[in-house]
Amino acid sequence: MGDLNHLDATEIAEGVRTGRFTATAVMRDCLDRIEARETDVGAFAHLDPEAAMAAAKAADSQDDKGPLHGVPFGIKDIMDTDFAPTGWGCAAYADHRPARNAVCVELFLAGGAVPVGKTVSTEFAYFNPGKTANPANLAHTPGGSSSGSAAAVADHMLPLAFGTQTAASLIRPAAFCGVMAYKSTRGHLDLGGVMGLSGSLDSLGLLARSARDLTFGRAVLSGAPGVASAFAERPPRLALMRGPHWQDGTMEMREVCLSAADQLRAAGADVAEMAHPDVFERLTDAHKTVMAYEAARARIYELRHFRDQISAQFLTLAEAGAALDWATYTDALNIRDTALRLLTPAFLEFDGLVTPAAPGPAPQGLDATGDPLFSRDWTLMGLPAVAVPAARTPMPQAIQLVGPQMGDDRLLAVADWVAARLGD
Amino acid sequence: MGDLNHLDATEIAEGVRTGRFTATAVMRDCLDRIEARETDVGAFAHLDPEAAMAAAKAADSQDDKGPLHGVPFGIKDIMDTDFAPTGWGCAAYADHRPARNAVCVELFLAGGAVPVGKTVSTEFAYFNPGKTANPANLAHTPGGSSSGSAAAVADHMLPLAFGTQTAASLIRPAAFCGVMAYKSTRGHLDLGGVMGLSGSLDSLGLLARSARDLTFGRAVLSGAPGVASAFAERPPRLALMRGPHWQDGTMEMREVCLSAADQLRAAGADVAEMAHPDVFERLTDAHKTVMAYEAARARIYELRHFRDQISAQFLTLAEAGAALDWATYTDALNIRDTALRLLTPAFLEFDGLVTPAAPGPAPQGLDATGDPLFSRDWTLMGLPAVAVPAARTPMPQAIQLVGPQMGDDRLLAVADWVAARLGD
Repeated sequence: MGDLNHLDATEIAEGVRTGRFTATAVMRDCLDRIEARETDVGAFAHLDPEAAMAAAKAADSQDDKGPLHGVPFGIKDIMDTDFAPTGWGCAAYADHRPARNAVCVELFLAGGAVPVGKTVSTEFAYFNPGKTANPANLAHTPGGSSSGSAAAVADHMLPLAFGTQTAASLIRPAAFCGVMAYKSTRGHLDLGGVMGLSGSLDSLGLLARSARDLTFGRAVLSGAPGVASAFAERPPRLALMRGPHWQDGTMEMREVCLSAADQLRAAGADVAEMAHPDVFERLTDAHKTVMAYEAARARIYELRHFRDQISAQFLTLAEAGAALDWATYTDALNIRDTALRLLTPAFLEFDGLVTPAAPGPAPQGLDATGDPLFSRDWTLMGLPAVAVPAARTPMPQAIQLVGPQMGDDRLLAVADWVAARLGD
Repeated sequence: MGDLNHLDATEIAEGVRTGRFTATAVMRDCLDRIEARETDVGAFAHLDPEAAMAAAKAADSQDDKGPLHGVPFGIKDIMDTDFAPTGWGCAAYADHRPARNAVCVELFLAGGAVPVGKTVSTEFAYFNPGKTANPANLAHTPGGSSSGSAAAVADHMLPLAFGTQTAASLIRPAAFCGVMAYKSTRGHLDLGGVMGLSGSLDSLGLLARSARDLTFGRAVLSGAPGVASAFAERPPRLALMRGPHWQDGTMEMREVCLSAADQLRAAGADVAEMAHPDVFERLTDAHKTVMAYEAARARIYELRHFRDQISAQFLTLAEAGAALDWATYTDALNIRDTALRLLTPAFLEFDGLVTPAAPGPAPQGLDATGDPLFSRDWTLMGLPAVAVPAARTPMPQAIQLVGPQMGDDRLLAVADWVAARLGD
């Protein structure tokens, strides 16, 4: 067929289940695309095409079909795999081979999905970039830290990939590359076997090209049923929250957000404007404090055992974190708690918030991954978020939808409704 | 000297720092005790006396002294170590050797502490027991899942050890063995490199023979300053909460709790009686639901790859968890949230709750670890807890102190005050 790599995961699973095509045929098209593009895009930290084909053939030979049967997927390289190295974006771990698969990886394998390879993460899922370029323009960053997963999905190398977020590591690369990302409620999806950077912040997530794929993948991880059609009867009630950083973004970003709100209104949604509580002005600094404080401890092994192989950027973070005192750290957690308490009633009124996803389109250059400013606050509050592509100017831009804790399913239903109505 | 193994960690650290004795001398006394008793007690999953002595000698040769310098410590065998196997209480992992140390282990090493060995965990930190016996009476269970850590501390093999709790895995073995245990606020201390069983429940903790050691160890893990003298000016205000299971415990347990409350009152503490909110009646079932649902996913790798090496007990848990639906699971989380909201104001009035630690003294027999009933509810709510020895009848019994989320330091100060006044 030659273009099965353009299907989304939902279509692939259905096609394989009904015998319309094989997992092997899907994988071949994905690998053909990867062969044509990987030299330029650099999405993979580890790739073994023969092993990927063998896994697809094994899937075809199985009678029991799981919900994701035959769906190729990418695995961020901070997630343990027993079939491929797990390098954490760090040279010292280039040859590290774990004994087990991370929980999320094994749940996908149990669901019949087929691993393509390990996708590039920035060093320790922080800022120091890997080799990945933005498929929309190879001179631009794909964002980070889930750089390879976002680029691989955007470039049609595979339909579905894992990522994680501690600051903006799912939403930002998705926005920059023009794909969708789902960041789960913190602490909700199991992070077993996934490198931790900051226990108060780390969240699992997915990157895909359709909202229904995010819902589909989430269902396999969580056991939740998909509810993508929750807004068939009435359009969602939304609130545009410009937030404390609105003026720190680009004019392009502001235009994209306002235009998206207008498009959604024209499609029938209620889109109010909502001011942020004053305490939100303090969230970004609080996020930086929590992340630095916890990351300095989470990486204590690497800092003590091979400091000379760690980037200056990460060392700066760790040194800042080690220098922070307990009172500053707990103040930051209290700011989080206050902000969350003040925001929560909004979700009785609105199905989701519309917010900026990034300061603007992906910046030029591969030596930095862009500014996580527009996701730090939501990540600190542990809220679920979805990036929805909203424009190409000509680089991709997105909006970010935010929901209440444990409101992941409903937020994905909002995202499905919104994505179908925004002119990407 | 010959009895340095009877000192607590605080005394050992001070003695080593001031040159009163060496880390090597301390380790020798600990290893002598272990050699005399390990055949009977069975506290260790892995023990290499030569390596432990070498680590102590290395500590003595260092000029820079960390806060825990020279303190021997035990490591629950679900925590990764690069210097010893990490078996998770499971035969399939008997020879598994991780590439890194768990975050908590490395933080202790960075603080100058010296590892003695890996202590026995029940299988996957659930119910199927290891080889450990209760040092107070070898025919009785030490409790689980942090069985080896509790037994080793109780038997003066080492002063300080790591444990974790998902149901009652710190409080119960401490109560059964007659030592103190600290279970941290959920999500607060980094669990990187520690086997996860249930992300909504798992918490790190410590076992020791003094409250100040728990505070001391916690400070190294968290960066928090110790505040053990918070109640020098006035005694703590406490509330005895009998809770929904009061009548399910033994008469001995009830006598110990009531007598402890009387002793504390006699020592000057305000000890009110506080009824539990009605919703507490539903917490235990909610805990069982959350634990089963999440454990079935957390152990998906082992369930798929070596099911035949997993105990019937664990398979029963996993099958129950896999059979639960999403609505039942989220209902359980909602019950937790409601209970926590109703309980929280109590902590404006009281410095801590006094509750039963276990249904009674350690039961006879080594084929089960006792009932986790009296810790499930507090663990579900993510609250910090401390086990304080309260009596020997003749087997050890304890009370359990419970505090508000992130009130760990203050709760340990309460525990310090209480422990000094209870006639163990």
